[in-house]
Amino acid sequence: MRTHYCSDLRASDIKKTVTLFGWVDRRRDHGGVIFIDLRDRTGVIQIVSDPQRTPESYPDAEKLRSEYVVKIVGRVSQRPSESLNPKLPTGEVEIYADSIELLNGVNKQLPFVISSTEAELVREDVRLKYRYLDLRRDRMAKNLQLRHAVVKAMRRYLEDEQQFMEIETPILTRSTPEGARDYLVPSRANPGQWYALPQSPQLFKQLLMVSGCDRYYQIARCFRDEDLRADRQPEFTQLDIEMSFMSQEEILNLNEGLVCHIFKTVKNIDLPRPFPRLTYAESMEKYGNDRPDTRFDLELVDVSDIVKDSGFKVFSEAVETGGKVKILPIPGGNETISNVRIKPGGDLFKEATDAGAKGIAYIRVKDDHKIDTIGAIKDNLSEEQKIELLTRTGAKSGDLLLFGAGDTDTVNKSLSRLRLVVGEQLGLIDRDQLNLLWITDFPMFEWNKDEKRFEALHHPFTAPNPEDLADLTTARAQAYDLVYNGIEIGGGSLRIYQKDVQEKVFTTIGLSKEEAYNKFGFLLEAFEYGTPPHGGIAYGLDRLVMLLAKEDSIRDVIAFPKTQQASCLLTEAPATVEPKQLKELQVSSTYKPKS
Amino acid sequence: MRTHYCSDLRASDIKKTVTLFGWVDRRRDHGGVIFIDLRDRTGVIQIVSDPQRTPESYPDAEKLRSEYVVKIVGRVSQRPSESLNPKLPTGEVEIYADSIELLNGVNKQLPFVISSTEAELVREDVRLKYRYLDLRRDRMAKNLQLRHAVVKAMRRYLEDEQQFMEIETPILTRSTPEGARDYLVPSRANPGQWYALPQSPQLFKQLLMVSGCDRYYQIARCFRDEDLRADRQPEFTQLDIEMSFMSQEEILNLNEGLVCHIFKTVKNIDLPRPFPRLTYAESMEKYGNDRPDTRFDLELVDVSDIVKDSGFKVFSEAVETGGKVKILPIPGGNETISNVRIKPGGDLFKEATDAGAKGIAYIRVKDDHKIDTIGAIKDNLSEEQKIELLTRTGAKSGDLLLFGAGDTDTVNKSLSRLRLVVGEQLGLIDRDQLNLLWITDFPMFEWNKDEKRFEALHHPFTAPNPEDLADLTTARAQAYDLVYNGIEIGGGSLRIYQKDVQEKVFTTIGLSKEEAYNKFGFLLEAFEYGTPPHGGIAYGLDRLVMLLAKEDSIRDVIAFPKTQQASCLLTEAPATVEPKQLKELQVSSTYKPKS
Repeated sequence: MRTHYCSDLRASDIKKTVTLFGWVDRRRDHGGVIFIDLRDRTGVIQIVSDPQRTPESYPDAEKLRSEYVVKIVGRVSQRPSESLNPKLPTGEVEIYADSIELLNGVNKQLPFVISSTEAELVREDVRLKYRYLDLRRDRMAKNLQLRHAVVKAMRRYLEDEQQFMEIETPILTRSTPEGARDYLVPSRANPGQWYALPQSPQLFKQLLMVSGCDRYYQIARCFRDEDLRADRQPEFTQLDIEMSFMSQEEILNLNEGLVCHIFKTVKNIDLPRPFPRLTYAESMEKYGNDRPDTRFDLELVDVSDIVKDSGFKVFSEAVETGGKVKILPIPGGNETISNVRIKPGGDLFKEATDAGAKGIAYIRVKDDHKIDTIGAIKDNLSEEQKIELLTRTGAKSGDLLLFGAGDTDTVNKSLSRLRLVVGEQLGLIDRDQLNLLWITDFPMFEWNKDEKRFEALHHPFTAPNPEDLADLTTARAQAYDLVYNGIEIGGGSLRIYQKDVQEKVFTTIGLSKEEAYNKFGFLLEAFEYGTPPHGGIAYGLDRLVMLLAKEDSIRDVIAFPKTQQASCLLTEAPATVEPKQLKELQVSSTYKPKS
Repeated sequence: MRTHYCSDLRASDIKKTVTLFGWVDRRRDHGGVIFIDLRDRTGVIQIVSDPQRTPESYPDAEKLRSEYVVKIVGRVSQRPSESLNPKLPTGEVEIYADSIELLNGVNKQLPFVISSTEAELVREDVRLKYRYLDLRRDRMAKNLQLRHAVVKAMRRYLEDEQQFMEIETPILTRSTPEGARDYLVPSRANPGQWYALPQSPQLFKQLLMVSGCDRYYQIARCFRDEDLRADRQPEFTQLDIEMSFMSQEEILNLNEGLVCHIFKTVKNIDLPRPFPRLTYAESMEKYGNDRPDTRFDLELVDVSDIVKDSGFKVFSEAVETGGKVKILPIPGGNETISNVRIKPGGDLFKEATDAGAKGIAYIRVKDDHKIDTIGAIKDNLSEEQKIELLTRTGAKSGDLLLFGAGDTDTVNKSLSRLRLVVGEQLGLIDRDQLNLLWITDFPMFEWNKDEKRFEALHHPFTAPNPEDLADLTTARAQAYDLVYNGIEIGGGSLRIYQKDVQEKVFTTIGLSKEEAYNKFGFLLEAFEYGTPPHGGIAYGLDRLVMLLAKEDSIRDVIAFPKTQQASCLLTEAPATVEPKQLKELQVSSTYKPKS
C-alpha cells in the first residue's frame, strides 16, 4: 500500500521506509548511479539506485524509461548538499530504492515527452487525441486540481454558510428553443418525438422555487448547439443558483460572499467588498459595452451635443438620425499612435471597421490648445466647439482623441474595441489587479433587426423593474451580470412570478398566447398555485476556472473537451452508428455526402 | 429579510420579533381568532391573528387561503398550556402576526391538498404533472433533503478523508453499445454522425487513471434506453469512483469507510465492520442468487448427490444433464404452508413456475423421521436417502422441504424466489436490520443462449483473476458487488490495464480485432503508454436514497422523474419539434403513425 504521495516527503521523513507509486518522469544515468524523477499527481521526488548502496533495485532501475509505471520501496535520505534542489518542495531529500517493481511499461513511441517544456508547443489536436498523456503534464494536472478546488469552494460556501441544497434536474427534457439551438434526442418509446438537452436548468430551478425548496444549487451541465467560437463548447458547466424571498440587494450580497470565498480559498486573495456597480446605461456610456475591463481608465466621452450642428455631416447626421458621436481620449496618444494606424490599412482602422464603423476621425492635441486633425473636422469646428471638446474630454497636450460617429451600437462597439486594443498595447492593464464589477439595470429587451421583433436581453423569465411596467419595451430588467476583468462570469435576475406579467413578456417578444402555452404552459400554470418571489444567477464554471488558471482557452480547464468542430479527437465522437440503432429509434439521416 | 426558518423557532426565542416567509399550510378560524400553520422547507409554525391583539394583521389574515404565499412579521409567544403541541418541534411557541403581506395567491382549485394525509392517495400521474406541488409535501421535501444529505456525505468522505478529485466527463460522447441501448444525438456540425449519451463514465474514468489523476469521483448522470421496468429511469445517477494502485482488499476497505460514513451521517447508524463477504459461488449455492437478503436464514441445500440415482426421473435426469436438485427447508412449514399453495393453482407454485420451474416437489417432516410427500418421491426414496436428506437439511419435525430440480439456473431462480416470498410471508425478515454484504469472485462471463456467445457479466473492462488466465471462459473476475438487504447498490472491479489481456477479453465476447479497435481503439492505444493498475466502483444513487428513505420507487427520490413510458408529465417531454430543427440537423423521423 502507498505510504506517501511523492510530493509529501520532507526532511522530517528522513530514515523512513516509504512505498511510492508513479511514473518515471525522467531517468538519468550518472556514471553508474541512476536518478529517477518519480511523478504522481502531487509532483516529483528523486529516486536513486546504484550498484553499491541498492544492489537489489539497480538491475530494475537500469531498465526504466520515461513514463514507465513503477512501485518503489525505499529509504528517505538527505540529499548531499551539492544536489539540494530548492525549486522542488521535495528538494532536500531523495529515496534510495530498495526495490523497484515495474507495473507497466511503454510499448510505443510517446507522441510527446510529458516532462519536457517542449510539450507546451505540441499542436492542440495531438494533445487532444492523446488527452490521457496531455493531462499528465504539470500544467494540465494543476488545472484540473484548480477546477476541483473551485467547485469544492462553491459547494462548501453554499451548503455550509448559506443552507443551499444541491438538486439534480433532468438532462432529457423538452425543446423550448429561445435563442440558441437545442441538441435533440429521438425517443424510442415515443416515436416521432424528441427530447432536448437543456440549455440551462432555468425552468426546473424556477419550479423548484414553486415547490418551496427555497435555496437550490447545482453544478449543471448545459448544452447549446451553436456555431462554435474560440471560447465555446457544445456542453459546458454552470454553477446554477436559485433562491426565494430575496431582494436583488440580498442576492448580490450573498453572491459577493460566494465569490470572495472562492478567491480566498483557491487563491488566498481577499477581494474588497462591496463590489463596485455600474448600471447598464452607465457602462454603455463610459465603456461602450456591458462587460467593461475596469483595470484601466480610458473612458468614452459623449460629445453628440457639441457637434450636432457641425458642418461635418458624419457628425451631424449621426446625431440627427438618433445616433451618437463619442470620443475615446488617449493620454499621450499623439506620441504613441501614428496616423498610419488610424487610417485605411492601419490596425486600429481595421478594428473599428470590423466592428462596423466606416473609419476613425481623430484630433491630436498639441501645446496651447492647438489641434491637428483631419480636414473635415478642421474646416467645420468652431474655436468654441474645439474648446468644449477639449474641456469635456479633459484632453491635455500630447493626447489623442479618437472619434466614433454613427448609430449608437456601432459607435459603442467600435470605440470599446479600440479601448481594449489600445489599453493592451500601451500597457495600461495592471495584470495583478482583480476587478469584479456588477452591471445592473439591463434593458428587458433589445430589438432584433433581422426578425423585426423584441428579444429578451437575458431570457424571457427575467422580472421587469416594477417602476417600468407601463411600457415593457423600454423597461429595465431586475437583472445583473458579474464581470471579472472585462469578462462576464455570471448573470442572473429576479424572475417573474406572476402570470399576467409573464404573459405580457411573452407577448412583447412576439409569442402568441397559443405558442406561449404550448411551450411554457406548465410554467404559467405553476404561477396559479402560490409561486414565491424568487431569483438567481448562473456562473460559467469553465470560464471562471480558465481565468483563475490564467489560461486562454476553456479547453485547457476541461478534462475531455471538444474541438471547435464539436468533435472529440480522443474517442472520435460523434461517429456513424449502426443502422440497427437508427431503425430502432425510427429516425434516419437525410444527409447526402457530396461524392 | 427573513430572520428565521419556520421550524427553527423555540421557547428561547420568545419575545423576539421575527420575519418569516412561507406558504399557508392550513388556516383555521376559531371564533374570531385565526390560526395559520405557516410552512417553509423546514416545517411549520403556528401564526395567530385576532382583532384584539393584532388588529393590523387581522384583515389580511382573514383573506388567506391554503397555499397562499406570505411574509409575516410577528412576535414569538409562549403557547397557552392547553394548546402546546409536543408533536411539533415548534409546538411550544406561536407567532402573533403584526403584519401579514400577501406575496402571491392561489387562483385555481388545487389538484390536491398539500397538507392533507389524503395527498398520499393521489394518483401518481397527477402528482407528476403537478410535481411542483407534490414536492411541497413533507414526505417528498424530506426525500430531496435526504438525497442532498447522502450526496454531501459522499463528497465529504471522498474529498476530505480520501483525497478524491471530482472530475466531469462528457455527456455528448461516442456510441459503444454493449448490452443496453444508447440514447443518440444527431450532430449538426458533422451531419450523418451521432453522439451517444453515456451509459456510464467507465472509459473516461479509466482514461483519467491513465492520466495519473489517481483518485477520481463524480456524481454522474448516466443514460440507458431500456424498456423501463418499475425501478428504472432513462436517466439515472451514480456515484462513480476510480482509483489507481489499490488492491481489491484496499478498495473494499475504502468503500466500507464510505458507506459507514453515509449511514452515520444521514441516519446516525454505526454499521459493523468489516462487512461480511460471500463469493459468487457461495451465494448461488446458499441463496440461489448473487444479491441475497441475509436478514433471514432459509438457506438452500444441494442434495444432487443424494438423489442422483433416484428412480424419480425428475431428480435423476436433472443431475444427469448437468443440473441440480436443491432443497429450500422451511422450519415449521408443515403447519404454515398448505399443499394447496404448492400445487398447481397455488401462489407458491406460480412463483416457481414463473421462474421457469415445472412445479414444486416437497417433503413434509413428521414426528420420528416420518415424512409425507408426493407419490413419486415416496415410491423412489430409500430409507437411507430419506435419512440423508433430513440430516443434510437439518430438518426437524414440522418442517417443510421444497425441492427444485432441473438446470442449475432455473433451480436457483425458482428456489431463491420462493425463499424471498416465504421469508416475507412468515415474517422472518427483521425490518430493523441493515445487512451490507460484499459478493466477490463473479465469473468473468456468462453464456448468452440466444446470441450463442459469451457475455461479460459486469463489463468487458473487468480484470480476470490472475490465477485463472489459462481459460478466460471459466475465469473468475476481480469484481465485487455491494448488496444492501438483498438489493444491489454498488458494483465494481479491478480493471484490465494490459493490452493483451484486454484483447483476449474482447475476443472471448466475440468482438473481432477490427470491431474492437473500431470501438475501443483509443483505450487499447492508451494501454501502450504506461497505464497504472486501477479499479473502481459505481453506486446507484437513486436506489440507495430510495432504500434510505424507505420508499418503494426511485421516482420518489428524484425531483423530476420520468414515467415508465419515459415521459415527463410536467413538461410533456419528449414532444414533437419544429420541422426547421430537424432540417438543420439533417435528420428525419421514419415513424408512420397508424391512422
